[in-house]
Parts: sequence; C-alpha cells; structure tokens
Amino acid sequence: MSQYRTFTADDAVAYAQQFGGLADPAELVRAEEIGDGNLNLVFKIYDRADRSRVVVKQALPYVRCVGESWPLTLDRARLEAQTLVEHYRHCPQHTVNVIHYDAELAVMVMEDLSSHQIWRGELVKNIPYPQAASQLGYYLAQTLFHTSDFYLHPHKKKEEVARFINPQMCEITEDLFFNEPYIGHEHNAYPAQLEEDVLALRHDDELRIAVASLKHRFFAHAEALLHGDIHSGSVFVAENSLKAIDAEFGYFGPIGFDVGTALGNLLLNYCALPGLLAPREAAAGREQRLLDVKVLWLAFVERFQALAVEKTRDVALAFPGYASAFLHKVWQDSVGYCGTELIRRTVGMSQIADMKTISDEAMRVECIRHAISLGKTLILAAPHVEDIDALLARIRQNG
Amino acid sequence: MSQYRTFTADDAVAYAQQFGGLADPAELVRAEEIGDGNLNLVFKIYDRADRSRVVVKQALPYVRCVGESWPLTLDRARLEAQTLVEHYRHCPQHTVNVIHYDAELAVMVMEDLSSHQIWRGELVKNIPYPQAASQLGYYLAQTLFHTSDFYLHPHKKKEEVARFINPQMCEITEDLFFNEPYIGHEHNAYPAQLEEDVLALRHDDELRIAVASLKHRFFAHAEALLHGDIHSGSVFVAENSLKAIDAEFGYFGPIGFDVGTALGNLLLNYCALPGLLAPREAAAGREQRLLDVKVLWLAFVERFQALAVEKTRDVALAFPGYASAFLHKVWQDSVGYCGTELIRRTVGMSQIADMKTISDEAMRVECIRHAISLGKTLILAAPHVEDIDALLARIRQNG
Repeated sequence: MSQYRTFTADDAVAYAQQFGGLADPAELVRAEEIGDGNLNLVFKIYDRADRSRVVVKQALPYVRCVGESWPLTLDRARLEAQTLVEHYRHCPQHTVNVIHYDAELAVMVMEDLSSHQIWRGELVKNIPYPQAASQLGYYLAQTLFHTSDFYLHPHKKKEEVARFINPQMCEITEDLFFNEPYIGHEHNAYPAQLEEDVLALRHDDELRIAVASLKHRFFAHAEALLHGDIHSGSVFVAENSLKAIDAEFGYFGPIGFDVGTALGNLLLNYCALPGLLAPREAAAGREQRLLDVKVLWLAFVERFQALAVEKTRDVALAFPGYASAFLHKVWQDSVGYCGTELIRRTVGMSQIADMKTISDEAMRVECIRHAISLGKTLILAAPHVEDIDALLARIRQNG
Repeated sequence: MSQYRTFTADDAVAYAQQFGGLADPAELVRAEEIGDGNLNLVFKIYDRADRSRVVVKQALPYVRCVGESWPLTLDRARLEAQTLVEHYRHCPQHTVNVIHYDAELAVMVMEDLSSHQIWRGELVKNIPYPQAASQLGYYLAQTLFHTSDFYLHPHKKKEEVARFINPQMCEITEDLFFNEPYIGHEHNAYPAQLEEDVLALRHDDELRIAVASLKHRFFAHAEALLHGDIHSGSVFVAENSLKAIDAEFGYFGPIGFDVGTALGNLLLNYCALPGLLAPREAAAGREQRLLDVKVLWLAFVERFQALAVEKTRDVALAFPGYASAFLHKVWQDSVGYCGTELIRRTVGMSQIADMKTISDEAMRVECIRHAISLGKTLILAAPHVEDIDALLARIRQNG
C-alpha cells in the first residue's frame, strides 16, 4: 500500500509514466502545476514534443487557499475518482476519463483536456458554445437517472449510498450554501455597499425557513449520486464537446441540487453581463443565457423522462406518469437550489470570475445586488413557479 | 468469535445465564419458545420459582412461516439490537431494554415483559389502555427527533445512515407495502369476494402514482432512524406502560412511515371493531380509536416541536418556524403511509388478528372492504388533508 506524500512535479511525471496508460510513457518529460482551485495540486504532464498528454491531480490534506489550519480529508480523492468513474459509466461523452487512481496517495490520472476551456471563463468572455447547455442537461439526466431508485437495484442503491457518504465535503456545502450567507460570518465576501441587502436576507423569516428546508433536503434526500459542485468552473467546453470534472463533492443527494447549481451559474453570468460587455452585447448575451437556462432544463427533463420510460427497473416507480410527477418536484428543488447558488456566490465565500472581472466598481456592486435579489426571489418562488417559461418570466420581471 | 447455530431451549438458558446480567444466573432453569412471528426464535427464560426473567431472541436464517426457501440475512439481528439500543438511549421508558447481543449468533437478551400484553390483542378485545396512544406518540417523537438532522451532527448522521442500511428487510417492506397489493401477486391474501375492490386499486392511475411516490420517499428520504415496523403487534402495553419491541426493520427513512404505520394499526382496528363487538360497544370502541389517533398524533407533534425548540443543534434547521413547516410534510407523509398500511394488511400478505378474529364471514369481508376503501382514500387525500381534525372528518365520511 502506498503512503501519502505531496507530489513534486517530478513525482507527477513518474506517476504518469507508470499509470497514465500511454503507449509511450518514456516520452513524458515534465509537469506544470496548474491548480487554481482551493483544494488540490493539478499537474499537466507534457511529452518531449511539448504536448500535454495526461493530468495528475492530487488532493492536499488542507484547504489550499486557507492553509494548513483548515484540514480536509484525503478521502475526497477516492470519492471524486469513484464519482467520476460512475458518471463516466453512464455518460462517457461528458465526463472526464479517470485512467487510474490511488486512494492512499489521494491521486488520480485523468485524460488531458487541453483542447477544452473552462466554461466559466468563456461565459465571462461571452464566447458561444451552442451545444453546451443541452450537453450539460444530458449529462445530468444520464448520471442522475442511472444512480437513482428508478434504475439501481434497491440493494445496490443502499450500498452505494453508504460507499459515497462524504461528511467533510458535504459540510462545506452545508455551511457555505445554507448557513454563512444568512448569518454574519467572517467568510462572507460581499461588497460593503450591500450590507443592507444582506441584512434583509437575514431578517426574512420566510426566506430563512425556505433555506432551512433546502438544507434539510440536502441532508436527507438521497435521490441520486450527485456531482455535488457542477458550476461553470467544473465544466470544460470545446466546439461541440463538454466534459464535467472536479467531483470531490459527490454524494447521494437531491437531484435538484445538481440541476439548480448548473442553472444558477448561468444566471450568475446573466446578472454579471451588463458589467462585462457593452450594453447591446450584454442584452444579447443575457437573452442567450436565458435560452441556455431553458435548453439545459429541457434537455435534462426530456432525457430523464425518456430514460424513465425505457429503463426504469423499479416496478412501482415505472408506473406511467410517476416520473413526470417526480420531475415536477425536482423542478421545484432546482429553482430553490439555484437561488441558494446565486446567494452563496455573491454574499458568501466563493466569489466568481463573472463578478470579479467587472472593472467598474459601481456596476459590479449593481450586478451583485441583482444576483442577490434574484436568488432571494427564486428561493421564495420555488414552490410556485409552474414551469421553465414561468421561471424565465420571473427572471425578466426581476430586472 | 462465536459461530452461528440455531439455539435449543437449553442453549437459550445457558446463554441467558451467561449474558442476562442477573445477580442469580444459576436460578435460571428452563426456556419456553414463544415466537409467534415469522422470522425468529423467541425464548422466555424461567427461574426455579417459575418466574420468567429475561427473553432470548435469535434470528433464523430464513422466513420462519415460509421455510428455508426464503432465506433472510442474520444481520437483521445486529440491526434490530442496534436500533433498539439507539431508541432506548432516547426513550428508555418506551423501548425494550437490550441487555446483550451477539452479531455472529444473531441473538440478543432482552428484559422480560411478561407483565405486559401485546397491544394488538388488547385492541382486538377492546381493552382500554388510556395512556398508550400518547405514550406511543411520545416514543416516536423522542426516537425520531434524536436521530434526525435536527439533532445529530451531520458527520454522525451520515455514519449512522451507512451503519443502518438494511437492504433485505427494507426489500420486504418495499414489496409488501408498495408493490404486491397493487399488482396480482401470489402473496396477496384478501377474500375472494373483494376481487373487484382490489382490481379497482390496480386500475386507479392516481393511486398508483401516489403509491410510487410513497415508495420513492421510503427509498430516498433518510430523515431519521425508524423502528420500521411499529404496528400494534410490535408494542407491549400494561397499565400506564408501553414498550416498543421488534425493530429488525430499523433504517434511516421518512419519519411519516413510522407515524403512519402506528396510526394505520389504530384505524385497522377501527375498521374491524364492528365485526368484533356488539353494535353499541363497537360504536364506542370506534370513537375511542379515533380519539387514540388524534392523541397519538398530537402527542408526537407536540413533543417533537418541544424538542425542536429546546434541542435542535443545526443552526439552519433551528430557525423559528422551520420545525412546524417540516412537521406539516411529516403529516402528509404519515397520512399516505397510513393508507398503505391499511391496504397491505388487508389485500397483502400480512393479515392481522383484528380481521382474522371476526367470526362472521360476511361481516369480516365488509370490515376488510372498509379498510381497503379507507386506505385508498387516505393515500389519495394525503397531500390535501390539512390537519388531524380534517383527517378524522374524512374517516367518518368514509363510513
């Protein structure tokens, strides 16, 4: 059994030579550490022709951006690798391929995605990827349906729930999504000008009860093996290609959490665009984002529905009409979790490039204010928004 | 480590001498096997003065009433013992005390409850236990609150969910509650005269979708450590005392399943009483059962609410008003699961003494017909029945 040590660039090259599954491993010569996340070392491994060939990712035993004072379990590397392996099994075209992983070293070797870009960066630059929204919806349907009670044998499902309990990573979500933005907390990172808006969240009883309910469902509703953090920074895109990465938050939770996170990042970009682009481009970009929201949801729901008809194995859940009824609950959950994503990304700790890139300070504050307001609206409206068109109408109403 | 062998009466005595925690173990001299359930050997262990002193319960590796052709995991003995230990921790006054258990032998030693009677038998004879309904509501609140996300640390909760996965026993419930009564199945045991009533269940689309949703919640909603089978045959009563036993179906599931099962058994008795008693006594008994239903629910909800105010440890779920909002969902779940209990005990495999004791055949059929009809009404009405008084009104309407 291997013993944990933090990899150097040379370690990463040697590891990729051994476990990268390449026909010409001796060609690998150097590694570049590119981790811009908070939790891991990420090495691109290059060959003699200076082409990157595979990626080596290693979990660090603490939160990187905070330091060793915030320790974090290495078991998340196992959870990430196993989540990606499961998702790849059901949606290879949109899940990064894990070539090898080692739980003790908390390391995995993955396919190189240098031909792709992180979607968030492209959204910030308003570069269109016409297939991305439908591809992400398809990914969510494939991965979530096949790990749900519709498809898994009940014995297998229960074993999988136990295999994927993820206490430490879930705790981060539990705190960052559902606690900190709604109480005074040192992690919060909103502009001082928005103090009143943030205080209004704290003092909105109906909102706080709705957020408690969303947190409770995040705790208790083991509906499917979630990605757990499927924001636009966890998605690589290229022309007609999309790949999900970074699944260390994977666990069995409510399907609407994944769907809502994905929708929320499109809406965060929607709120940010007036600060990123000239007015005419911003208006067109925003229309595109709303279309993306609609396309993502419809791609998800249509694919899930089709899978339910074709492949449901549970005799009771297969009854005609049940999948639709369930998907309506998923819809309500999705709208609510979408709202929490908007608020945790603006009020809370995990600020995003969409907003940070806005150079005009006043404009940035207004865009953030809009996202907070929209987030609140969505959380409160979630049980009442009938369908995707009603959602888009609400979003337009909100400004 | 001990190795599994089926206990003889002598084995049971020797085991009780060793592990019964008695000051005078040598006094134990004989065992009587009293298991009337389907799954286990149950020995009462007597001393020289012919007083029963402790109970030894051993799980058999198959379903007793069917035989060795239906094998069943011995791990259920661990799950039962651990569920009872957890419940005893939070409600010692209403949970049988497990003195010792051994996972390998699938055996446990429990306190003797010879001073008590099985509640179902007393209900059949219409013998009043004025405290029983409120005590059972209290037991449900204590055990379910303290194993829920309101109280358990999120790390601990996730570990407990994994420790208590119970695939084989859950599968029995999944089949017997949610599948077999709604499809043609050889296990079903309703009177031939009710074929049309049963066919009507199968062909009621709205009902089938509602049952699918209840099954899905049984699969996925890990709200608290349930007893899992808290019918009136799993409850011992005496004057001013109540003890829950038989927790081999324990797992983390929807709180409303336990509450609904408990309510359902009172209503099954309500439906049976006209066949068990003379008209005037039956009418009075039925009023008492409806009062029991109300008292049980109110005792549960008031105690859960009080615990939520005093002892909720999760900062978001502690927000004032959230517990009430959640308990309204528990209410809706309870009404739905109550309906499935009525149907699975009449249409399905697990027939009950309340009905079987009715000697007049035509009357027995009518009582069963009433229970099926009420079960269907409750499943369909569950999302719309506002509160306990509205439920009682519906029950009276139903006849």
